[in-house]
Amino acid sequence: MASNRVWQTTTTFKRLISTYTSKSLPSKTHLHAPIPDSAFPKGYALTGLHAGVKKKPELLDLGIIISKLPASAAACFTRNAFKAAPVIVSQEVLKESQGRARALVVNSGCANAVTGTQGMQDAWAMVRATDALLDPPPSASETLVMSTGVIGQTLPISKILTAIQSQSTSSLGSGFGAWEAAARAFMTTDTFPKLRARTFTIRGKDYRLAGMDKGAGMIHPNMGPPSGQLHATLLGCILTDAAVSPRSLQNALTYAVDRSFNSISVDGDMSTNDTIIVLANGAAADGQPEINEAMDKDAYEIFKEELTSFASELAQLVVRDGEGATKFVTVSVEGASTYGDAHKVASRISTSALVKTALFGEDANWGRILAATGSIPLSTPLDPSRVNVSFVPIDGTAPLPLLVNGEPEKVDETRASEIIGAEDLEIRVELGLGDQSAKYWTCDFSYEYVKINGDYRT
Amino acid sequence: MASNRVWQTTTTFKRLISTYTSKSLPSKTHLHAPIPDSAFPKGYALTGLHAGVKKKPELLDLGIIISKLPASAAACFTRNAFKAAPVIVSQEVLKESQGRARALVVNSGCANAVTGTQGMQDAWAMVRATDALLDPPPSASETLVMSTGVIGQTLPISKILTAIQSQSTSSLGSGFGAWEAAARAFMTTDTFPKLRARTFTIRGKDYRLAGMDKGAGMIHPNMGPPSGQLHATLLGCILTDAAVSPRSLQNALTYAVDRSFNSISVDGDMSTNDTIIVLANGAAADGQPEINEAMDKDAYEIFKEELTSFASELAQLVVRDGEGATKFVTVSVEGASTYGDAHKVASRISTSALVKTALFGEDANWGRILAATGSIPLSTPLDPSRVNVSFVPIDGTAPLPLLVNGEPEKVDETRASEIIGAEDLEIRVELGLGDQSAKYWTCDFSYEYVKINGDYRT
Repeated sequence: MASNRVWQTTTTFKRLISTYTSKSLPSKTHLHAPIPDSAFPKGYALTGLHAGVKKKPELLDLGIIISKLPASAAACFTRNAFKAAPVIVSQEVLKESQGRARALVVNSGCANAVTGTQGMQDAWAMVRATDALLDPPPSASETLVMSTGVIGQTLPISKILTAIQSQSTSSLGSGFGAWEAAARAFMTTDTFPKLRARTFTIRGKDYRLAGMDKGAGMIHPNMGPPSGQLHATLLGCILTDAAVSPRSLQNALTYAVDRSFNSISVDGDMSTNDTIIVLANGAAADGQPEINEAMDKDAYEIFKEELTSFASELAQLVVRDGEGATKFVTVSVEGASTYGDAHKVASRISTSALVKTALFGEDANWGRILAATGSIPLSTPLDPSRVNVSFVPIDGTAPLPLLVNGEPEKVDETRASEIIGAEDLEIRVELGLGDQSAKYWTCDFSYEYVKINGDYRT
Repeated sequence: MASNRVWQTTTTFKRLISTYTSKSLPSKTHLHAPIPDSAFPKGYALTGLHAGVKKKPELLDLGIIISKLPASAAACFTRNAFKAAPVIVSQEVLKESQGRARALVVNSGCANAVTGTQGMQDAWAMVRATDALLDPPPSASETLVMSTGVIGQTLPISKILTAIQSQSTSSLGSGFGAWEAAARAFMTTDTFPKLRARTFTIRGKDYRLAGMDKGAGMIHPNMGPPSGQLHATLLGCILTDAAVSPRSLQNALTYAVDRSFNSISVDGDMSTNDTIIVLANGAAADGQPEINEAMDKDAYEIFKEELTSFASELAQLVVRDGEGATKFVTVSVEGASTYGDAHKVASRISTSALVKTALFGEDANWGRILAATGSIPLSTPLDPSRVNVSFVPIDGTAPLPLLVNGEPEKVDETRASEIIGAEDLEIRVELGLGDQSAKYWTCDFSYEYVKINGDYRT
């Protein structure tokens, strides 16, 4: 009876059901703006249209990109064991063509993943219909295909084919409007089209890069070249008017993807469809030889670094538009003994639900950062007494140390709140074990994230 | 201008800010009920009290458990590189005593983690103060210590020591009230104390097991024996009046923990403090020899299986009370070529934010289950055409196939909603590669999860 009494008087079982009031999501308006037509690489023609994969007629769901000249092609694909049909088909095309392609076709709204034989037939049909737009017609397929959207549903293939067949090289455009429409055709839960362009110079000659990509969930890519073990739905493409040999293009892309798309996380989930494709058509090369790692290391290095920096810009856009994201957070891990260790720690911090909810709550909870840091085995074991953690504001003011040589600092909470209250911030972790570093980009976990993913069927 | 026009008319940048209305969290009242005094193992005395670590005086924050007889002790500790002071101290005590201990002392409200030299001193002070309650007094420490709560803050050690010193063997109890108070002293964000007892029989003789544990966040334990590489804040203890040799007790616990506490996830985050301790004092052995793996394999196997089953019951309670949880989900992975592969796949599905939000949204989204399944490298690569996925209702009615031999089934959405609408369900994934299997227990990701972790500082 005494026992019963204790039990009855001190027990409160149900957590209070609260209302969840969320701060407004930050506006993303500034992240998409018109780009002058002259900034886009030469020799490409594009379109984005509504084929009928998505229900609402105002939403674009089919993009076609054609290079008017022969082009080198390279790609990185998801390492997921369940690779969607378009991933398998693009790999085959790229292998057969030995790194040459002239067209990309992409649909959003349906991932054509886990769709069996029908899915493979549909992906090939998209390739062949787009091949038919090429002039001169290719002897073997030169179209790479990408799909994103719901898994396990087959494409409305006749609608898609009709839409492709309605196009011709002359109906495609090359101005901002055409590029933007193509970028819109990639979108699923994205709130804005992701399109960027830049110019770079090699030996006094200007070349252009343009790229587009999409997120915004199932984003934790781990992509490798076609020959490697494959895993990540992030889709993207990068187009340049430089001339680059297929092999050098693949090497540069693989390097770039590891330091960009493979270094972002929205939700820690790797997709069956992740694909990044790059085309280099040499339209601005004016007879210069192809950039070739073996022949001209310097030119290759310049190209590789430009591609990496540009890929990183595109990858970060996906995180900024991550599902429900209110924060854009750079996780920098320094002082690791290997790049792999630095990358693993940065990835673990970037995917920690506790770190991400603390970021949403604007709570300077370094304990969670530390617990995540210590939770994975590294090639050189961590020595807690050498670890430093700090918040780095992006306005150039002084970093705020949270942990110095394994001991907690007395944190100025006002300053901590200032830094973590900003939309952008950096978490820096120094391991004190070596000179290797890696960066990862992540966002917070919000009510909106739960809402989007409790409702939306990928 | 044309470009600009396209841009202005089709852009909508901000996702609608919604109100987040959540279904009620399920009541957990039925998960804690009085247990008859006679069900508890003999020879233990316990208490739970308010020492002042937590602010509210009605919340218990200090538990003391004493075995009146010499006892074998075994433990599994977090493998996190940042091991809290109580973890390090308990490891040292256990090593010095060669697997003997007579007392446990636990506080909640402060994890004594990342607290440097002061933290180590405080943990030792708790051990020594509890040692002083033992009769006869130990020649070397026989107290194991556990802490849970905020990381990076030092304990209010004088309050804790005063509270320990106010106790004596005679002030401790052995009825349900005392056991329940001790269980309450473990609680942090838990909504109910987790206490269970059961009786088992070896060679016609009855023994008892009782245990208590706590969650409810930073729960993704990976614990190993003291000698192994260490990582998980889950705290728990299991007490028995069977007699078991220290080494056999450790082997049985290591086996049990892998299949129980190391197979649960609330949020995928591994703590700096995770500790499971078992004491076996032989109070019901009546002169029977200690259970010893080398001497009597049969008796050992019975004990090991009872311990594993009991540990699994305690571990599942943590998931049922997971932060914000509205669902209790068993993830069964079958047909793997190794137990390790099966465990890895089950863990990946159980930690997928997309799977967990789909469960909260009661969306039969098998695509996300599949993407998670395929996202990690296994010792035998997956063959998608051999994979089967189904939902298994817990009411004994027929499972619902979602994917058969890699091809999606036409799913009866009404039936799928019925199954996923229940509080308990099982996700079964058959890999078709071998005969090894593993189970994992997880919960969903809700608004409440985000709220708890956006506010609460661990």
